[in-house]
Amino acid sequence: MKIIDGGVTAPKGFLAAGIRAGIKPGSEKKDMAMIYSEQPAVLAGTFTRNIVKAAPVKWDQKLVKEQEAIRAVVVNTGIANACTGTEGYENTQEEAALAAGLLNLKQEEIAIGSTGVIGQQLPMDIIKEGIHQLVPKIAHDRQSSRDAAEAILTTDTKSKEAAVSVEIDGKEVIIGGICKGSGMIHPNMGTMLGYIATDAAIDKELLQELQKEIVEDTFNMISVDGDTSTNDTVLVMANAMSGCKKIQEKDRDYEAFREGLLYVNRELAKQIAGDGEGCTKLFEVHVEGADTKENARILSKSVVTSSLTKAAIYGKDANWGRILCALGYSGVNFDPEKVDIAFESAVGTIDIVKDGIAADYSEEEATKILSEEKVTAKIHVHNGEEEATAWGCDLTHDYVSINADYRS
Amino acid sequence: MKIIDGGVTAPKGFLAAGIRAGIKPGSEKKDMAMIYSEQPAVLAGTFTRNIVKAAPVKWDQKLVKEQEAIRAVVVNTGIANACTGTEGYENTQEEAALAAGLLNLKQEEIAIGSTGVIGQQLPMDIIKEGIHQLVPKIAHDRQSSRDAAEAILTTDTKSKEAAVSVEIDGKEVIIGGICKGSGMIHPNMGTMLGYIATDAAIDKELLQELQKEIVEDTFNMISVDGDTSTNDTVLVMANAMSGCKKIQEKDRDYEAFREGLLYVNRELAKQIAGDGEGCTKLFEVHVEGADTKENARILSKSVVTSSLTKAAIYGKDANWGRILCALGYSGVNFDPEKVDIAFESAVGTIDIVKDGIAADYSEEEATKILSEEKVTAKIHVHNGEEEATAWGCDLTHDYVSINADYRS
Repeated sequence: MKIIDGGVTAPKGFLAAGIRAGIKPGSEKKDMAMIYSEQPAVLAGTFTRNIVKAAPVKWDQKLVKEQEAIRAVVVNTGIANACTGTEGYENTQEEAALAAGLLNLKQEEIAIGSTGVIGQQLPMDIIKEGIHQLVPKIAHDRQSSRDAAEAILTTDTKSKEAAVSVEIDGKEVIIGGICKGSGMIHPNMGTMLGYIATDAAIDKELLQELQKEIVEDTFNMISVDGDTSTNDTVLVMANAMSGCKKIQEKDRDYEAFREGLLYVNRELAKQIAGDGEGCTKLFEVHVEGADTKENARILSKSVVTSSLTKAAIYGKDANWGRILCALGYSGVNFDPEKVDIAFESAVGTIDIVKDGIAADYSEEEATKILSEEKVTAKIHVHNGEEEATAWGCDLTHDYVSINADYRS
Repeated sequence: MKIIDGGVTAPKGFLAAGIRAGIKPGSEKKDMAMIYSEQPAVLAGTFTRNIVKAAPVKWDQKLVKEQEAIRAVVVNTGIANACTGTEGYENTQEEAALAAGLLNLKQEEIAIGSTGVIGQQLPMDIIKEGIHQLVPKIAHDRQSSRDAAEAILTTDTKSKEAAVSVEIDGKEVIIGGICKGSGMIHPNMGTMLGYIATDAAIDKELLQELQKEIVEDTFNMISVDGDTSTNDTVLVMANAMSGCKKIQEKDRDYEAFREGLLYVNRELAKQIAGDGEGCTKLFEVHVEGADTKENARILSKSVVTSSLTKAAIYGKDANWGRILCALGYSGVNFDPEKVDIAFESAVGTIDIVKDGIAADYSEEEATKILSEEKVTAKIHVHNGEEEATAWGCDLTHDYVSINADYRS
């Protein structure tokens, strides 16, 4: 596996564009994106578990279920098209129909993504004008992925892209993607949109099963604020244009592809976690020694979601009591008197807790380690062999500022 | 039932005191309290469900289980005596032994409460000196309850007291209490300590059963930040000194007592919710039309705990999408297209959502309603007959400031 510079246009045959349509008045930000595949791309998708689902989520779920392959995705920010009733769903269908007409495709070959304010109808005149602008702009180059990655952001501060190359059957296969996160990022997927493209050839059912499994250890292990959204979507599109042999079973080729797809999902997820609203650092929580994989996940997510722990990480405060406390209310059974905790960052590692009580450590040294941009809490519960990692960020003054009046 | 001005010294035979022992250097705040009953008081208690339990919680749980009655409680703030191992538990026992010696009681007649930083040992010299100071100060007057209520606070901004008088068997029975909350307040009880005293005569098992039931609808329905603590404790002490008939079964007397005890628990819980760290308003969430009582509780707690909703309430922003979203990820099944939402405060009520989509309302009017000190979200899910209320507060810049460096 080789990490490469690129995004959703890295694999063969994928084009993209990002433009400003003007959905949110007074902003200069790009707000609509399109991804296009020259050949039909087998589609897999994972979606929010929130029972309140936005119109585009319902549409994309239908495509994943009923369509073998699709050709394009249209995404807008500013308005989520959630809680918008029949009118909202009809607007999503209208978007797909318009893009299909312009691209000479069928309506069912166009996936739709929306993110932004819940409860408002899309300004369809602006959206339609945006689609008209997008179609002639799509291109298979580095910049076009950057434009698309920028266009799907909301309160994110950084664009998010990742790409790798893997060898399958002697041929190079590329996997690349873009995503947006920020606000409402949580286990079970927050307000996040992710679009991953690959020129691999793979069986649709196998791709769906694989992506579902990967999401559990990547996008479902990140948390910004504990809220899960109405619009979360990760789509994976595989258009076979690498010319490699079709992956049909869990063989060596599948394993090579799996490694690449896992990497892209995990990198995108970590970029989201480290770019939570107002956040100043990526907070990683690694739990070892759990009795089951699921319990390892629950424990690490409970710590990474704790507001008190996140505020302490912001304050560079080695307040391990809050970590033990968050483990304790997770619902998972363990012996608090067997827990070890260490903090780790680029400048070193420090043991903070041994057997459930404070180790003899220097607060000054701990603060130094907690001052880095990426901080890891390493927790051992000595209750078994399973482990899991969760990613989140610190809780800051800016988080409150951003969310106190998001709609204005 | 008559609401009266008073706290834990309102019932006959209860004395209290609050003093500054000096546990946290550089502070002028009172930090130790004592409550004392002239006659043995039947003891009931509810405790944190966190599996990491502080030493005083383990001690008090033992008393509730093994003792028919106790005589006094000693409380300190500054250090929680949690995650302190054998030394911590021995310190708790030593506190009880010292207070017992000075009061001419048995060690097992003294309950202990601690709240503050996790993971540090109590400064026993200061604690012991504090107990010596407390004993001669205890008094049965209004001010002594105020002193005790003040002494148990941590980052709370206001003292919390409540009292009522009820008539049982023709005699006046008083129920009064004090509590502290702030930070880590959540369903399943946050870092909160509550001490309720009554001069009623009641069977111990009946009191325990009643208090357990009441806590579900009061202290377990408040949330400040979703974290639950290692130290949460509510004790109820009944010393029979009103001279009323002993309550032995669920008769009319029991109902009168139940009403009073529920009121005191609920008032104290609401005072905690409205005084969360950095909070500017009490946020009440009332859910109607749930299929089960438990689901009504889960739905209302999910909304009151949502960071995004709480930040919107702080910003006086009628962002009902976040409320629908929080209902949607609660895990409770309902039809999002049947949900109605209204906001209510002292200045009026406004319908915001009808059948899952935006009602035709004035944002200006909504902001006016959301600007009051107490704001209620009234939610109807049209799925049954059950209802529940949860209390919380808004999420503010000051919450982050307080928790970024609590230990310094």
